[in-house]
Formats: sequence, structure tokens, C-alpha cells
Amino acid sequence: MSLPSGYSIRELKASDHTNGILDVLSGLTTVGTVTANAFESIFKQWSTLKLSNGSNVYNPLVIVDSNGKVVATGMVFIEEKLIHSGGLVGHIEDIAVDSSQQGKSLGKFLIKELSLIAKRSGAYKVILDCSESNVKFYEKCGYKEAGVEMQIRYD
Amino acid sequence: MSLPSGYSIRELKASDHTNGILDVLSGLTTVGTVTANAFESIFKQWSTLKLSNGSNVYNPLVIVDSNGKVVATGMVFIEEKLIHSGGLVGHIEDIAVDSSQQGKSLGKFLIKELSLIAKRSGAYKVILDCSESNVKFYEKCGYKEAGVEMQIRYD
Repeated sequence: MSLPSGYSIRELKASDHTNGILDVLSGLTTVGTVTANAFESIFKQWSTLKLSNGSNVYNPLVIVDSNGKVVATGMVFIEEKLIHSGGLVGHIEDIAVDSSQQGKSLGKFLIKELSLIAKRSGAYKVILDCSESNVKFYEKCGYKEAGVEMQIRYD
Repeated sequence: MSLPSGYSIRELKASDHTNGILDVLSGLTTVGTVTANAFESIFKQWSTLKLSNGSNVYNPLVIVDSNGKVVATGMVFIEEKLIHSGGLVGHIEDIAVDSSQQGKSLGKFLIKELSLIAKRSGAYKVILDCSESNVKFYEKCGYKEAGVEMQIRYD
């Protein structure tokens, strides 16, 4: 499994604010206003949070095309628990692929890399929540149904 | 809605290692070995992690009986996102009530308090994953089905 020629995957950078990531995320959900300052502040906050073992809590990735433009993004953050002998759990969040980039398996590549980051951090499992219509996609990525997501919204 | 006479709810303390919390959690899942040192180290780690707005990332609660023994516990940790204008999401995890304490609505009280912590932190939603058999309980707590939990396990 590989990326199309000229595409590459890397960690998110503070300078990616103007690189198309917000456009890509807006295909997923409401992005709202995220100024360059707010972007940098969130990025900085993410970067400072560490686990007991020194690994990063937040691990945001982007796939960029040959022009350096963000065409896909995803996050895995790591939770530190008491259970499972002080175990770690990866949470995959906010997976988005630009609508013009379908059919290139960018989402699958991203999920594989995010899962690996969690595994290397020492997580005993990685979880994510998705809609019923995306279950088949995540099964192709090696995921299995594990439960029901419940929510209360305050917005 | 209130706790039984003599019961109270409070934040987890580092000294709760010997207070019954691990027994309560062992009713939920594998706890494994968590020494007093490991417990303190995880507790300390949780306490140091802050959001951009200064709130705690990890918010572990316990309900104690009139002898100060832990009879229920639960956690909400807060994720900081780019989407929703740099929005916050509460994740409720590791809800456990001692099996001898059923029928006192301790779980419902705990969920209400954890959800409130997330709301007060500024979260636009709180989510949790549960088994199909617990959906009705969480609906009584005000939660609605929102999606499917998927997982890969490495243990």
C-alpha cells in the first residue's frame, strides 16, 4: 500500500493554517472561524501535552500533494488510563479527505499510519467512532465493531 | 436527584489507591497490576495536563460511602479540536459502580456530574462508547445514539 506519486504523509505543522487543512476539514463538519493565531495556539497546546512515557498525546497527520497542499488529515490522541495496568488507548478523530481526491486510498493510508502511531506509543487498543455507512470502510482498515457511540450536545 | 445519606462525590485523590477504587474498576474490566507508585504517577500525569483555557484535561470523580470507601468511579477527559472553531469535546470513560451498590442510581449521578464538568469546561458535546445492553441506561441520562464504535486491539 502506497501513496500516489508526489504525495507524502507527515506531521501537521503550525504553518499548515494556510495550506488547505481547514478546507479539507470543512468537508467533514463545521470548522467555523479558526484564525492563524487560534490555529497556532491549538497547535502549540497539542505539542506541549505528553504522556508519562514521553510520547505525544496529540498526533495530527496530513497528506500533502506534489504542490505541498493538504489533501487529507487525521488525528490520533492517546489516553492514559488506570485500567489495564496503567494502559494507553488511541482515539482516532477528525478524518477528512478532500472530495476531489477520492479513489486514491488516502483515507486508508491515513488510518493505517494513525493506528501505527498509537501502537508504537504502547496503546493496547485504538478506537474510533463512525457513522453506520462508514463501518465497511473501517473494516477494510482492520477495525471491528465494538460498541455504540452515545452523545449529548451543548451547541 | 441526590446521593444516599452519607455518600458524597468528589475528585479522585492520589491517596485513593488504597481506598477501593481498583476493586471497583475490576468489576468493569482487567485492572492488572497498579502499584501505589504507578497510581501516583498516573494521577500526577493527569493533573499536569491542561487545556488552552486552563481547565483540566482529565477529570476523574469518585463516589465514596459514609466510611470514605470508593463505591463508584468515572472519568471525563476533554479533547481540544481544530473543528467547531477550536471546539472542546468531553469523552466519558471507565464508569464503574461496585456490584454491591446497585439500585442507588450512583451511575446516573456520576454521569450527570461528569457531563456537567465537560459542559462547564466549554465542550460543545460529550460522547461515550457503551455496549448495546447499556444504551437504555445512557438514554435515561440524556444521551442519544450517535454512531458506531470501532476498534483494533493490540493486547
